[in-house]
Amino acid sequence: MLANGDRVTAAVLIIGDEILSGRTQDTNLAAIARYIGTYGVDLAEARVVGDIPEEIITTLNHLRGRYDYVFTTGGIGPTHDDITADCVADAFGVKLYEHPEIMALLTGRFGDQLNAARRRMARVPEGGTLIKNPVNGPPGFQIGNVFVMAGVPQIMRGMLEDIGWRLKGGAVVVSRTVRVEGTGEGTLAAPLEAVAKAHPALSLGSYPFFSNEQYGSNLVIRGRDPIEVDAVVIELISALETAGVKGAVPVDPLG
Amino acid sequence: MLANGDRVTAAVLIIGDEILSGRTQDTNLAAIARYIGTYGVDLAEARVVGDIPEEIITTLNHLRGRYDYVFTTGGIGPTHDDITADCVADAFGVKLYEHPEIMALLTGRFGDQLNAARRRMARVPEGGTLIKNPVNGPPGFQIGNVFVMAGVPQIMRGMLEDIGWRLKGGAVVVSRTVRVEGTGEGTLAAPLEAVAKAHPALSLGSYPFFSNEQYGSNLVIRGRDPIEVDAVVIELISALETAGVKGAVPVDPLG
Repeated sequence: MLANGDRVTAAVLIIGDEILSGRTQDTNLAAIARYIGTYGVDLAEARVVGDIPEEIITTLNHLRGRYDYVFTTGGIGPTHDDITADCVADAFGVKLYEHPEIMALLTGRFGDQLNAARRRMARVPEGGTLIKNPVNGPPGFQIGNVFVMAGVPQIMRGMLEDIGWRLKGGAVVVSRTVRVEGTGEGTLAAPLEAVAKAHPALSLGSYPFFSNEQYGSNLVIRGRDPIEVDAVVIELISALETAGVKGAVPVDPLG
Repeated sequence: MLANGDRVTAAVLIIGDEILSGRTQDTNLAAIARYIGTYGVDLAEARVVGDIPEEIITTLNHLRGRYDYVFTTGGIGPTHDDITADCVADAFGVKLYEHPEIMALLTGRFGDQLNAARRRMARVPEGGTLIKNPVNGPPGFQIGNVFVMAGVPQIMRGMLEDIGWRLKGGAVVVSRTVRVEGTGEGTLAAPLEAVAKAHPALSLGSYPFFSNEQYGSNLVIRGRDPIEVDAVVIELISALETAGVKGAVPVDPLG
């Protein structure tokens, strides 16, 4: 983990039995991580909890106290198992009300078909502000440092676009990857560690893969000083060559 | 969430900065959830933490106290950022030692090339037992109710195969899906909730999707009595038709 006193941190809270059952493959975590990273906000932790009010409320209160921002996904639709708005309101100790902007949107769209279930989607905790939903549906909302978004990935990503401008991030983390194919981590470990120790302000990690029956690894250099990060790409490749590792190549263009 | 007094529960702890940075898309959570589900073990919570010892230790101790089983992925390779074995030993208050079986395996494979980095992979907490790695590499390990596996998905899935026989699960949860295309959740909500209320032993959820510019939803029925679950598939489709929803189809074959 990258050390930095000024780090701005966030947590993701994924709400939904469908992720925990393995039925649905989550992709929101990675999308949020990459998006907030470009604003200088580091994802420090993520949790997946089921559709259980006490779990959601306790977890949300813990995370919002500990991190600068919390992003939730899932559970804001119209069905009986969509309980996120209720839980967020409980966590903040406020009430839900039908937001007039969402009611106008739903009335315009559904007219006579605006039933009780659909009205559930108009409910926002007192003090919350709306997060635009560019994909044909009701908004999410922000309350305090918590952003409440839909679980459907296309909609979630649309909502993110209305969040970036609200974030006060730190220095953006730059990352560069050096890819090594056909050499296991056991050979890479010593030169990698030596370079890591020489650059305590950076984070160097090794993320192995296994393909075509061979081990390889992506060596990732992360830091807030892009000049140092680029210099370390060169230094690491040189250290690997000295250790007899051939074919280490930078994946990203150098700045 | 499915109510059941005899529920056997588990947590997944994903260890790795690469997941939190959004660089790597995790797929292990869903694979573990589905695998343990067939043994009657329900995934109740999942967490992703970075490569920070205190975070890993605190989180692991919390999870292993709270759930019947904990599955960790990531951080058991040979590089300096692979700190999972150290953290698990710390969490259990025991020491690491070089396991003779792993040492034999590594010596056989690497001979003279068995360097300090590779020997790191032989370290197992005292009291731990090995989890076979069918994919060309060192094993994972089990200590108490904690299973420590590799992060690389192909290897992790191989290791899972040596875990099932150790699990004492509850009744297996069966799930059936009714898919509705072209109808939003707002229309489905009332009949879905009515059927859900009539079957308190089951869990009925709605998992919307958005494709071809249209909303639809997978309605998932989960329970431990397969006969009741199958009956509710029919009941739900009938309730949807009564509410004017056409084209609800069961996705899975009925038992």
